[in-house]
Amino acid sequence: MSDTVVVGLDVGGTSTRAAALTLTGQRLGTGRAGGGNPTSHGAERAAAEIGAALRGAVADVDPARVRAGAIGLAGAGRLHADPDGRAAFDRAWRDAGLRCPYAVHGDALVAYASGTASPDGTVLIAGTGAIAAQVRDLRLDRAADGHGWLLGDAGSGFWLGREAVRRLLADLDQGRQPGALGTRLLTELLGSDRVAARPRDTVDALVQAVTCRAPVELARLAPLVVAAAVDAEPVAVGLIGAAAGHLADSAARIRPADAVEPVVVGGGLLTADTPLATAVCAELARRWPGAPLSTAGDGAAAAAWLAARDLPEVTDPAALHALLVPPAA
Amino acid sequence: MSDTVVVGLDVGGTSTRAAALTLTGQRLGTGRAGGGNPTSHGAERAAAEIGAALRGAVADVDPARVRAGAIGLAGAGRLHADPDGRAAFDRAWRDAGLRCPYAVHGDALVAYASGTASPDGTVLIAGTGAIAAQVRDLRLDRAADGHGWLLGDAGSGFWLGREAVRRLLADLDQGRQPGALGTRLLTELLGSDRVAARPRDTVDALVQAVTCRAPVELARLAPLVVAAAVDAEPVAVGLIGAAAGHLADSAARIRPADAVEPVVVGGGLLTADTPLATAVCAELARRWPGAPLSTAGDGAAAAAWLAARDLPEVTDPAALHALLVPPAA
Repeated sequence: MSDTVVVGLDVGGTSTRAAALTLTGQRLGTGRAGGGNPTSHGAERAAAEIGAALRGAVADVDPARVRAGAIGLAGAGRLHADPDGRAAFDRAWRDAGLRCPYAVHGDALVAYASGTASPDGTVLIAGTGAIAAQVRDLRLDRAADGHGWLLGDAGSGFWLGREAVRRLLADLDQGRQPGALGTRLLTELLGSDRVAARPRDTVDALVQAVTCRAPVELARLAPLVVAAAVDAEPVAVGLIGAAAGHLADSAARIRPADAVEPVVVGGGLLTADTPLATAVCAELARRWPGAPLSTAGDGAAAAAWLAARDLPEVTDPAALHALLVPPAA
Repeated sequence: MSDTVVVGLDVGGTSTRAAALTLTGQRLGTGRAGGGNPTSHGAERAAAEIGAALRGAVADVDPARVRAGAIGLAGAGRLHADPDGRAAFDRAWRDAGLRCPYAVHGDALVAYASGTASPDGTVLIAGTGAIAAQVRDLRLDRAADGHGWLLGDAGSGFWLGREAVRRLLADLDQGRQPGALGTRLLTELLGSDRVAARPRDTVDALVQAVTCRAPVELARLAPLVVAAAVDAEPVAVGLIGAAAGHLADSAARIRPADAVEPVVVGGGLLTADTPLATAVCAELARRWPGAPLSTAGDGAAAAAWLAARDLPEVTDPAALHALLVPPAA
């Protein structure tokens, strides 16, 4: 058993991480590369990034020892309809010298498994977008939201950025002087916090500055909202509270009111120590008292654990989870 | 005075209308053509459509009798920064044989003037988008919303369509059977009202069906919401009420709480006899009791009236309004 190695990858939009681990929890190697999602980056680039991360992880490992692997990927379900993407993954796997099979899981399942070993529970993710999902027997079951910025992602980074701009526009419409958050947004979007003599000119300039970029770039304003909320700026505090409510509402669409199974929170906005993470955890604890709450951690290790669970020598998956997947800091 | 003719044009996104009127209210000609907005259609096409509408209106008029003209245009303010657009308008004007000057006004001002002769008041417009504006001395003063679908247009046709799809997605997330409005949306967007065995497949198909089109096309779903509200479908009735609240809120951003000046409602969603028009007028009457409420009517005639007001022989603009601008049906 100590010879066996498992490999996990966590493929994100901006970075890919890989880990090679023994079943005793020894970390033999890690790898890191750029974003490797075949849907957003194309099959060739995805294969190159995944290959780079994989090679980093198994550089000092005899490939024959690697007995199982798993890849966590946003939109994993689409890979089955994308032969080029699947072929690119196969090639990257082979080119790294690996001969064992590998599984592809949704990133939400991997985020869930990075926070708990429980086969059943809920995962709530907020980054650029937002989604909640039920996990049954370590498979994604029902989901709520994740509908994208145009139709959903309530409480996400996109939502925070858009709502912050909307509050600023409402202030300008009413002839009010922008508050501290509005001032930061003006500087970020227009290069100056000065409101024109005709406030409508500033309104038009803001609308123009936002609409000349891709809509999803509104998510880049979320850190300004978070920072303003840390400073107790009232508009930002209100938006953070509303976002936490939306995220908890999404979880409530799929999680029974009396559930006591774990909830894992993940995504850039909830894994960092932000006022939103605090507000979401408080809201979850209020709605589901007694349910264990944890934060998503090392996705690559969690993917490796998901792969290892199917090996015949693994008899206690929960114990293996404690060895392989470090708790979030 | 009876020799004097004034010409007005109402240039919209999908149609252009022109009217030639005497100062006694005799309608000497009308013209109609396709959308003629230089921003959305290009200067050449705009000039061609405006020219066609103008020629229709003055076909039987001695051009030397035309003493004043005005054009109502969405985004009129941008025309000053668009020399090509301005030159195209000049050319269309000359090619129709007209030698008098003409003014270009925002479409919101023309909609306002088509509903009242009062120099001061409020106009509230809801079509694909939504905007409210204060009018002072027959010029557009402050505005609220009109921020476009990404950041605003609360209560507009876009908003109604998007919110209707969001309610349907929320029902599917929760495993609920869609109601009557949701069923109509499924048929419209997916060609069938059947929900897949895995409702998430229907969710994904809906998100795909919406996001593969231009976002603003969500406004095409607004008539389904209006029709469902006529049938008292509860989700649609709720959305219509929320839209009316948003539209009245936009007006309240710029209109004092104690204002008694007229309010004119315009745009395709408020000039037709729809539940939204009824709800908006009820909400406006509740918030501003005693203020006259009217519906936008003939924009081309209103533009002609705006042009005529500056002629020296016009001494009673309100009386002239009664002669030139027919009340909305």
